[in-house]
Amino acid sequence: MKVDGKMMRTIWPAGHGAVAIIDQTRLPHELETIKLHTLEDAVVAISSMQVRGAPLIGATAAYGVALAMERDASDSSLNTALRLLGQTRPTAVNLRWALEQMRSALVNYPADDRVPLAWRMANEIAEEDVGLNMAMGRHGLDLIKARRHADGKPVQILTHCNAGWLATVDAGTATAPIYAAHDAGIPVHVWVDETRPRNQGASLTAWELGKHGVPHTVIVDNCGGHLMQHGMVDLVIVGTDRTTATGDVANKIGTYLKALAARDNDVPFYVALPSPTIDWNIADGVRQIPIEQRHASEVTHVQGRSRSGEIVSVQVTPDGSGVANYGFDVTPARLITGLITERGVCPASREGLLSLFPEKRGVAAGS
Amino acid sequence: MKVDGKMMRTIWPAGHGAVAIIDQTRLPHELETIKLHTLEDAVVAISSMQVRGAPLIGATAAYGVALAMERDASDSSLNTALRLLGQTRPTAVNLRWALEQMRSALVNYPADDRVPLAWRMANEIAEEDVGLNMAMGRHGLDLIKARRHADGKPVQILTHCNAGWLATVDAGTATAPIYAAHDAGIPVHVWVDETRPRNQGASLTAWELGKHGVPHTVIVDNCGGHLMQHGMVDLVIVGTDRTTATGDVANKIGTYLKALAARDNDVPFYVALPSPTIDWNIADGVRQIPIEQRHASEVTHVQGRSRSGEIVSVQVTPDGSGVANYGFDVTPARLITGLITERGVCPASREGLLSLFPEKRGVAAGS
Repeated sequence: MKVDGKMMRTIWPAGHGAVAIIDQTRLPHELETIKLHTLEDAVVAISSMQVRGAPLIGATAAYGVALAMERDASDSSLNTALRLLGQTRPTAVNLRWALEQMRSALVNYPADDRVPLAWRMANEIAEEDVGLNMAMGRHGLDLIKARRHADGKPVQILTHCNAGWLATVDAGTATAPIYAAHDAGIPVHVWVDETRPRNQGASLTAWELGKHGVPHTVIVDNCGGHLMQHGMVDLVIVGTDRTTATGDVANKIGTYLKALAARDNDVPFYVALPSPTIDWNIADGVRQIPIEQRHASEVTHVQGRSRSGEIVSVQVTPDGSGVANYGFDVTPARLITGLITERGVCPASREGLLSLFPEKRGVAAGS
Repeated sequence: MKVDGKMMRTIWPAGHGAVAIIDQTRLPHELETIKLHTLEDAVVAISSMQVRGAPLIGATAAYGVALAMERDASDSSLNTALRLLGQTRPTAVNLRWALEQMRSALVNYPADDRVPLAWRMANEIAEEDVGLNMAMGRHGLDLIKARRHADGKPVQILTHCNAGWLATVDAGTATAPIYAAHDAGIPVHVWVDETRPRNQGASLTAWELGKHGVPHTVIVDNCGGHLMQHGMVDLVIVGTDRTTATGDVANKIGTYLKALAARDNDVPFYVALPSPTIDWNIADGVRQIPIEQRHASEVTHVQGRSRSGEIVSVQVTPDGSGVANYGFDVTPARLITGLITERGVCPASREGLLSLFPEKRGVAAGS
């Protein structure tokens, strides 16, 4: 999407066997792009969260394999690359999927010919992500159009965390319909949950919406219920990390609270999900999806820009007070108005998903 | 309550015509007590939020009048004190109530005799607050006892913001039952919402629970729904800034979201309120209680302790992104299990409140 008028992606081939990325740990205060030249560079980029977001992690891992092949296209080099990249973020589904794509394409191919194939595969994985997001954008656009106000006032959309283009290669998942609407001239305004503990809403979603020119307002995570009580939200669109075959959605912690408020105030609540995030094997999100507990420092400390311009971390809790840091929660399907997929919008239910993905009827859990 | 084993209050007479307070702007990182000697000291303490919380503001204002009388007990001095103190926090109900108590006691009294009376009145206002809180503590204790686990595991209580002893003269409102239970040997554990934007949960509630020895864990505001989904919360107790005659509760922004999660998971949701916070004139909280919008910097910036030990403020939003900062939301009575008052616990309804305060039957709004 646009950054100060220029189209940009989160990762792109930079010539001479390198790829470039945006260093997302510096956002929203500094826009720095860095070049990855080696497998090790790619490993560091993922594990230090210079790139984050499931689809972007997958694409970065694919390019990481290509970087490894550039140096040494042998079987042992390939295996090392797959192993090191696979260890960077153990819970990321797309990461394993992308590495498996790379492995199966390269493993039976002569080492001498692997370099161009690795680059082509990595590019394909990146383009496929963009394609999925653009398709979700088109389907979600219709939902936003349907909520357009006769008086021309902006459609008010609330989102949580960053399911934006910064989490993908381009366009984003939850943001794809928003960018599509904005680019089509439909007035939109986005309420951006700051999304503690890591503040991905305040630091990433607000930044990318601002750079693309989409009107938005940052709010604390406590605020959305009040806005919905007062008719200030027309619809909610969020992303997801994992969706059950029955339409339960695991997403950033706090999503469930917004879904409850949406239902209490008759506000439509949509989840944008590329189909690779559907886990067809499970039927009960609250009971079956394990919720990752993350490092205490994300709760005890907050990162921001000091008055002198440095990016620093400050402690907000008392010494001696313990914290708990659950990364995700599960929003039951009963609270979700619809799922926006690359094939269209469907009810959040087993039958809804199977109506768009009939080929999964044999494998989908639930009844 | 206790601080490192020693009983402490938020404000106390310090001899020689002075009162002492805890400078709450330094918490949780530094415990500093300061002495107020003059009216101006009291005005600064309230307006700079060295003291905060409606009951404590009221008590501080009362002592501020006593400090003014020490210097000059004339009518004009009294009027100046009432005026300057009244302007410190325009929306605080208790502030106006405390000043009116002081005015009516002093105005028809000879100037020469006003000093001891002013001190006695201020002490009475402070003691009255403690008395209300202790009474709520006794009634709320029964609710906690009723949730005691047969296996001796702690009763899990979630609270939002700071309705603790730091917001009052002592004991607190929402925390009074918690301290009563802990002091009675009932094992309790408190989930403390950090409570953005000002983080009063992380900085004040966690500090005071820790200093009194009450087991607790700080969580981000997004987390409570997940905990309730997984049976990790036995009851919720929060405070209130204003309660309607029908039992709707205005409290710190985000309270409503926790009430929704509590209902969705059959977790009892209680509000502790001294009766002076009941506004008997209004019946519909969502429509009739105006919600204060506070300064943007509370959302754009977070205060904490830097690595070098300084208390600093860091910016968490991008330059150019606007913010909205609603200070409170309204939790409708239908989501509230019961109201804990100094006279007992009642349903959150007009009839419930009138059963405890029958003298209000003629004036209570609603039907």
